[in-house]
Amino acid sequence: MSKPTLKTVAVVGTGVIGRSWILVFARAGCQTRIFDQDPQQVKKAMIWLDNFFAQDVKERFMTASEAKRQKKRVSVHTSLEETLKGAEYIQESGPERLDIKRSLFASLDKASEQMAIIASSTSTLDIEEIAAGLRGKARCITAHPFNPPHVLPAVEMMPTRNGDPAVFEAAAEFMKSIGQKPVRMNYFVTGYLANRIQAAVVREALHLVNKGVADVEAVDTVISEALGLRWALFGNFGTNHTNADQGIREYYARYSQAYKDLMNDLDPTLPPFDPEMIERIGKGVDVMMGPSSVADLCRWRDRMVRKIRSLKEQNPRP
Amino acid sequence: MSKPTLKTVAVVGTGVIGRSWILVFARAGCQTRIFDQDPQQVKKAMIWLDNFFAQDVKERFMTASEAKRQKKRVSVHTSLEETLKGAEYIQESGPERLDIKRSLFASLDKASEQMAIIASSTSTLDIEEIAAGLRGKARCITAHPFNPPHVLPAVEMMPTRNGDPAVFEAAAEFMKSIGQKPVRMNYFVTGYLANRIQAAVVREALHLVNKGVADVEAVDTVISEALGLRWALFGNFGTNHTNADQGIREYYARYSQAYKDLMNDLDPTLPPFDPEMIERIGKGVDVMMGPSSVADLCRWRDRMVRKIRSLKEQNPRP
Repeated sequence: MSKPTLKTVAVVGTGVIGRSWILVFARAGCQTRIFDQDPQQVKKAMIWLDNFFAQDVKERFMTASEAKRQKKRVSVHTSLEETLKGAEYIQESGPERLDIKRSLFASLDKASEQMAIIASSTSTLDIEEIAAGLRGKARCITAHPFNPPHVLPAVEMMPTRNGDPAVFEAAAEFMKSIGQKPVRMNYFVTGYLANRIQAAVVREALHLVNKGVADVEAVDTVISEALGLRWALFGNFGTNHTNADQGIREYYARYSQAYKDLMNDLDPTLPPFDPEMIERIGKGVDVMMGPSSVADLCRWRDRMVRKIRSLKEQNPRP
Repeated sequence: MSKPTLKTVAVVGTGVIGRSWILVFARAGCQTRIFDQDPQQVKKAMIWLDNFFAQDVKERFMTASEAKRQKKRVSVHTSLEETLKGAEYIQESGPERLDIKRSLFASLDKASEQMAIIASSTSTLDIEEIAAGLRGKARCITAHPFNPPHVLPAVEMMPTRNGDPAVFEAAAEFMKSIGQKPVRMNYFVTGYLANRIQAAVVREALHLVNKGVADVEAVDTVISEALGLRWALFGNFGTNHTNADQGIREYYARYSQAYKDLMNDLDPTLPPFDPEMIERIGKGVDVMMGPSSVADLCRWRDRMVRKIRSLKEQNPRP
C-alpha cells in the first residue's frame, strides 16, 4: 500500500460501517478521529476494534506491534467540532435516512475545515439531496463502501451535479492510496451499481428455485464453484472478454442472438417475497448450511476474502 | 480427492471441452479412452495435454512423475466401438447441434456396454430430444461442465424424463468422486442455471454502461472487488444469508420492499447488441485490460481459480 494522500480523517458515526472504516483508515496510516452522537456506539466500536486486532494478531495477519501502531492512530472525541479539527477527509456513516443525513451534513459543512472533503457512506440516497442548499455542496460526495470496507475494497463514488472535479479526483486518489478501489457513478440510479447487479442475480436465482428447476444449493453451487470463481477475478465484461479467443467483440457478435433469446426467457415478473417463499428459501439454506451460525459463516467469508485478495495482490493481472 | 467410483471412462469428441474432460478423468485416476471422428482433433488434444502437464510441472502444481502417471491413463482409439470397450461412463463432447448429437447418441447407445452411463456435455440442448427414441434413453443424462472443467468444478446435470434414478445417482456420485461439483436440474430451461444467471448480470451491466451511469471498468470493479469475492465463496443465497445477523429469513423480510423497488427499476428492455454497442463496450474493455492478450488473461484466470479452489479446500466452510 502506498502512503495515504490525506493524513487526517474523521469518522462520524461508528456503527457497523463506521467502525470498519476506522480500521481502513488506521491501517493505511491516517490519523483517525472518531465521533458518534451515542457514546455507547463509540464504546462498542472500540471493543470491536480491540477484538479485531487481537484476532488478527492471533491469526498472524499482523504483528502485535503493528496492531498497536494502528490502534494508536485512532482518537475518540466528544464533540463534532473537536473531531473535525484538522480533518482533511470526513467519512459520514450515520443512519440511512434523508432527514438525518441532511442535518448531519449541515453540521459537518459548518464545523469542518474549509477544504475538507465530506463523504457519505449512504447506500440508497442521492448526494444531491443530502447536500442540497449547503454552502459547501461542491465538496460533498458519495463514498458508498461494501460491508465491511476493511474486507471488500470497492467503493461506489459520486460527485454532486456541479461538484468540484478536483474534490472528486482527490477523494478517489485518497481511496486508492489507502488500498480501496473507487469506482465512479456519473449520476444517481436506484441501487447504484452493485445492488442493481446483485438484484438481477437474486431475481433469477429466486425464479429458478420458485419454479422448481433446481434447489437452493444447486443454484448456489453454479455460482460458488463456477461463475463466482471467475467474477472474483474479472467482473462481467472481463469474463465475457475471456470467453472468446478474440475477446469481447467476437463474444458478443457471436452470441448476441443466444443472449437475446436467453434474456427474453428470464422471468420478467417479480418474485412474491411472501412468507411462504421466504420460508421455502430459508429451508433450502438450512439444508445447505447445516448447523453453522451466520456469525461463523461471516468470519470464514471475511478471512477467505482477505486470503483471495492477498493472492490477487501477489499475482497481479497481466 | 477420493477414489473414482467408476474406473473406465470414454471421452468422445476431443475439442476444447473434451480435452479438458480428459484431464479431469485422468487426474482422478480413471482409465480414459478417447476418440474423435477427426484424427487431427485427437492429435491437437494430445499436444495440448502434453503442454498442460509440462506447464503444471514447471509451476509445481504437480510432480513430473505424477504427470507421467496421469498421461499414461489416457489411451487413443481409432474406432468408436473400440473406444467404448469396458467404459462405464461416456462423456460426449461433440458439436453443439441437435442432429449431430442425436446421431452420435444413437451410435453410443448401440456400441457401448449395456450398463454404461452416456452423458452429454451439451450446454443448450434438451437431453430429452437428444436421446429421444433410443433403447438406452434411461441411461442418458446431461452433464454440462463449465469451460474448462479441469479448472471450474460445477457440472449441471439432468436426467431424461423417465430416466433411471439409479443412473443419475451413480453419475452424480462419480462426479463428486473425481472432484467435480454436480448440481441437479429438474427440467429443461433455456440456458440451464448458470447461463441464465450470467445473462441477468450481462443485461444489467450493459444497461449501466449504455445509459452512461458508469464505465466498463467501474461496473467490473464492483464485481471483482466486492460482489465476486463473496460469490466465489457463497452463491447467491449463501451471500444473502450472511447479510443479516439472523440469516436469510431476516434479510428477505427486512429488504423485500427494497428489493422489489430495485427489481422494478432494472431495465426490462433488451440491450441492442448492435455494432455500435459492441464497439463501445469493446473500447471500454481495451482501456481496462491494456495490452494484455486474451490468452494471457485466460492463463492468469485459470491459475488463479486453481489457487482460490485450493484455498477453499484447505479452509473448508464451517
